[in-house]
Amino acid sequence: MAMTGVLRPGHAQMRVLDLEESIKFYSDVVGLVETGRDAQGRVYFKAWDERDHNSFIIRQADKPGLDFFSFKVDSHATLLKFDADLQAYGIKTERIPAGELLETGERVRFMIPTGHQIELYAEKTDVGNGQPYTNPEAWIPEAEHGIAPVRMDHALLYGPDIDGARDILVNVLGFYLVERILLEDGKTDLAVWLSCSTKAHDIAMVRHPEPGKVHHVAFLLDSWEKVLRAADIMSMNRVKIDIGPTRHGVTRGTTIYAFDPSGNRFETFSGGYSSYPDWHPITWTIDDVGRGIFYHDRALNDAFLTVVT
Amino acid sequence: MAMTGVLRPGHAQMRVLDLEESIKFYSDVVGLVETGRDAQGRVYFKAWDERDHNSFIIRQADKPGLDFFSFKVDSHATLLKFDADLQAYGIKTERIPAGELLETGERVRFMIPTGHQIELYAEKTDVGNGQPYTNPEAWIPEAEHGIAPVRMDHALLYGPDIDGARDILVNVLGFYLVERILLEDGKTDLAVWLSCSTKAHDIAMVRHPEPGKVHHVAFLLDSWEKVLRAADIMSMNRVKIDIGPTRHGVTRGTTIYAFDPSGNRFETFSGGYSSYPDWHPITWTIDDVGRGIFYHDRALNDAFLTVVT
Amino acid sequence: MAMTGVLRPGHAQMRVLDLEESIKFYSDVVGLVETGRDAQGRVYFKAWDERDHNSFIIRQADKPGLDFFSFKVDSHATLLKFDADLQAYGIKTERIPAGELLETGERVRFMIPTGHQIELYAEKTDVGNGQPYTNPEAWIPEAEHGIAPVRMDHALLYGPDIDGARDILVNVLGFYLVERILLEDGKTDLAVWLSCSTKAHDIAMVRHPEPGKVHHVAFLLDSWEKVLRAADIMSMNRVKIDIGPTRHGVTRGTTIYAFDPSGNRFETFSGGYSSYPDWHPITWTIDDVGRGIFYHDRALNDAFLTVVT
Amino acid sequence: MAMTGVLRPGHAQMRVLDLEESIKFYSDVVGLVETGRDAQGRVYFKAWDERDHNSFIIRQADKPGLDFFSFKVDSHATLLKFDADLQAYGIKTERIPAGELLETGERVRFMIPTGHQIELYAEKTDVGNGQPYTNPEAWIPEAEHGIAPVRMDHALLYGPDIDGARDILVNVLGFYLVERILLEDGKTDLAVWLSCSTKAHDIAMVRHPEPGKVHHVAFLLDSWEKVLRAADIMSMNRVKIDIGPTRHGVTRGTTIYAFDPSGNRFETFSGGYSSYPDWHPITWTIDDVGRGIFYHDRALNDAFLTVVT
Repeated sequence: MAMTGVLRPGHAQMRVLDLEESIKFYSDVVGLVETGRDAQGRVYFKAWDERDHNSFIIRQADKPGLDFFSFKVDSHATLLKFDADLQAYGIKTERIPAGELLETGERVRFMIPTGHQIELYAEKTDVGNGQPYTNPEAWIPEAEHGIAPVRMDHALLYGPDIDGARDILVNVLGFYLVERILLEDGKTDLAVWLSCSTKAHDIAMVRHPEPGKVHHVAFLLDSWEKVLRAADIMSMNRVKIDIGPTRHGVTRGTTIYAFDPSGNRFETFSGGYSSYPDWHPITWTIDDVGRGIFYHDRALNDAFLTVVT
Repeated sequence: MAMTGVLRPGHAQMRVLDLEESIKFYSDVVGLVETGRDAQGRVYFKAWDERDHNSFIIRQADKPGLDFFSFKVDSHATLLKFDADLQAYGIKTERIPAGELLETGERVRFMIPTGHQIELYAEKTDVGNGQPYTNPEAWIPEAEHGIAPVRMDHALLYGPDIDGARDILVNVLGFYLVERILLEDGKTDLAVWLSCSTKAHDIAMVRHPEPGKVHHVAFLLDSWEKVLRAADIMSMNRVKIDIGPTRHGVTRGTTIYAFDPSGNRFETFSGGYSSYPDWHPITWTIDDVGRGIFYHDRALNDAFLTVVT
Repeated sequence: MAMTGVLRPGHAQMRVLDLEESIKFYSDVVGLVETGRDAQGRVYFKAWDERDHNSFIIRQADKPGLDFFSFKVDSHATLLKFDADLQAYGIKTERIPAGELLETGERVRFMIPTGHQIELYAEKTDVGNGQPYTNPEAWIPEAEHGIAPVRMDHALLYGPDIDGARDILVNVLGFYLVERILLEDGKTDLAVWLSCSTKAHDIAMVRHPEPGKVHHVAFLLDSWEKVLRAADIMSMNRVKIDIGPTRHGVTRGTTIYAFDPSGNRFETFSGGYSSYPDWHPITWTIDDVGRGIFYHDRALNDAFLTVVT
Repeated sequence: MAMTGVLRPGHAQMRVLDLEESIKFYSDVVGLVETGRDAQGRVYFKAWDERDHNSFIIRQADKPGLDFFSFKVDSHATLLKFDADLQAYGIKTERIPAGELLETGERVRFMIPTGHQIELYAEKTDVGNGQPYTNPEAWIPEAEHGIAPVRMDHALLYGPDIDGARDILVNVLGFYLVERILLEDGKTDLAVWLSCSTKAHDIAMVRHPEPGKVHHVAFLLDSWEKVLRAADIMSMNRVKIDIGPTRHGVTRGTTIYAFDPSGNRFETFSGGYSSYPDWHPITWTIDDVGRGIFYHDRALNDAFLTVVT
């Protein structure tokens, strides 16, 4: 009861064009903590204040993009129940054995109608956040190494059937709708923001012709001042900033979008409101979409609807 | 699934010595929004960014203190189930009819072994946060009237049997333990922080000989800069500050404790980490309790263990 | 000794196209305090934390722009000395009698080679900042009415002979060079930032073919969080934002550029370093001018070199 | 003209009980940059954003305290003029040859009637702030090593004849009075804050029976969030905090007072208003002194008037 079922985004696996350059980028610029490498050549990271072994995994590939995005559930029993529920819904699922990802239990993988591989799992080794569980300090030096987000927070996926994907996330996995943008017809969703918690978004989706695309994976910062610090660090490292620092109308978070060396967009953001499942969803109409996405400029930039990996 | 059962602290009803003075205090200094008065003479408030009709209720009485602290649950069915579960556990419950509190549905009331009246309810009228649900702005002028917290957040209760109370909250209502302080024996809890969400605390309890006492009700602010602004506003209004601005070691939130005109302590705080039910609880030993409570001073002040209402 | 001669920017007089709309804009959006109107129809404002009667004056005209920008000097004797020094330098000066501007003493007006009217004066009535000079509070409610800058801070002027203008400001009036941008030839200044205090800029100039143009008048905010608040207020009032929130490389200040209803650009900014006259000036080369002006985007936007009034 | 004569506090030399422990403390906890050691065993530091070679010097001694506090003047000619003016005023001065302090020119030393050695000098080697003077970045990694203030900012001296000391600072050296606290008689100053710039204080003095005592040397931080970070770092390093984070009523700065390992108090603070010599001084009466010193608590703590070194 209370927090059950799907708990949170657990890990994202991304493709990068140059592994060494990307390891350096995610370690020293984004400021994630490297926690391991596996026999497949994948490199594992966590944000400093996360406790589970990994939340962000990169592998070398010819094209950038997202391999899969995964949620942690509260128990193995819940994992099995979700697997059954998904199959009952008509979705083909795949079991990936424990250990295929370092320090991670069995995963249930399935494709949602936006063309993205989604995973559920119940176990990942608790490696702590660098502080003991008895009498800890408030933070550690790693909290200031690079941008140093506190957690991998959510992803914004682009793909065709966001209605179908939303139905699975809401009706099978227990997410709820927090905000939406409606197209000109006033009925069809251009975009939806969904939560499995009190976060304003644990996952979001934009309607897009090509399946399986990712707009960004987002990392949480503690304050608007940390957003400024992130922008400074990006500039010092000549990181290509897409937009920001600014605020989103949707979720009210303050944000920067920027690109990793492979062209994958990532977000470093702070704030936004806490949401609850009994709350009425917020709707943005297409004529105000600019303000919904970029609250200060009140206009989409060219890249928002077109640049995805 | 995901967020189910008990959603959040819903309302606290407090006793004040002088109603008019307290209305002015909670309206203009704390910066809550008055939303109604009832035939019993009670005055209802909400924080500006809350959507339900009320979260903080005051009534005139001879002694200050807390009448009851209540949680919203996700549905009427859940309310009925919790009522049955509580009774099955051996707790006497009381049904309070819808409407007894303004714009609030039926409540299930029961006493926990710390001597506090706790309530559950499933319905409270959505009056919004002053913005429309279509194309809203990021905030409203009320967000700067007085201290202007975004929500009533949690309470810290003082009473004798915190073990018994915790057992009910955890095993019947689905809360989980986030942090604890152990007494000299290394086994007995001096204090526990419990969550029904991803908040580091939705309720907390300190072991105390007298039953039914309240240390503080807490209101959430958006940033450390808002904590400074709150302290400034307190000083301008000659509000008695107990301690702060400072940081808690427990939850890592930044905080001020202060007293309302009746001597009820309240907290205005910001930040702290997000917690999850799969996380290992953090333990503070008694020799480090000072740093746990007041991270910078690293010592309890005289009032912490003694001044309650 | 110490702080002598020219003390600070004192007042700017701007032309607006619609006086009533502009009064509303500067009162309620920018959040200046109106302090008077004169027989010529001019409207006078000050920032809340300024003590002198006015710092920003608007008048209705057919074209937007800056009438004059004025500095307060430390005494009438200094005013007379500067008048003589300017004339000795070969500059024609004009004496404008006390009272021509409300609550303002005699002014010495002269044109600098960028085509701007500059004034010096020694007296302006102290009306206070809303707090008494005995036992004041830290701030007043006006500090949160609109954007509510703490002071009118500086101006950026565009005109042809910035070398000649700089020579007068430095060698007659005692300013010193803080930062500069060099053109492709590595010798000619595209822009200079000058200080008469420990501010990183009390006035700045950009080389531009048309004389007498103004890029922006700037208002100081207390923090980066206030910069966010300013951007939010701009958006809520549908103010056209040129760029920001962002950081300047030059001065390191955090900033927003936006336009008033007449098309006059204004800046709301915070921070930046304190400078001293014994410090070595900082130079930006033309290949890095983008980062110098907009530290995060590292590119000028279209408006920077072209849109002036 | 403009900024002339005395520019700013230049260096403070302090006595510490254990040099090695203090080097570690000022390097790693306060986060100053060590810039040299001399034959006398003195260790030199600067704040990261200062450009002159040193601003804080420590030497081992039997008792903690301040050896001397020094101001940089704008030129050697000014130094000579001040020396003559001081002697003409009746003060005995001493010339200390260039090089006696590392990378520092000739100094003029004299005692003010509070019993403190004050120095003036015109030259100290510019070693930069770690960034080039062409196309610099906004900050450097050292800006996050330890508390990492941006500059040594001012000192608060305790001694008997603050009237006599003020007269010299104001009438010979060109300082001006910014704020004062009056004793019960409504005439005698308990404390005065003086500026030689637009800072709200470059030096302050409290009336105290013992001569030559120091209450604190202060280091400037960029924001209230950096004040929190400073308090966290102090706690992590078990530094004894005297008070804070809080705000001063005087100057309006936000602050922490803490003690170095030798018992010397230091301040890390941010903000406060900018002052000008034409501004009316602010007066605090003795009945409101608590709020003047500690704006939130509105009461002096025990240490304020008694603990000095």
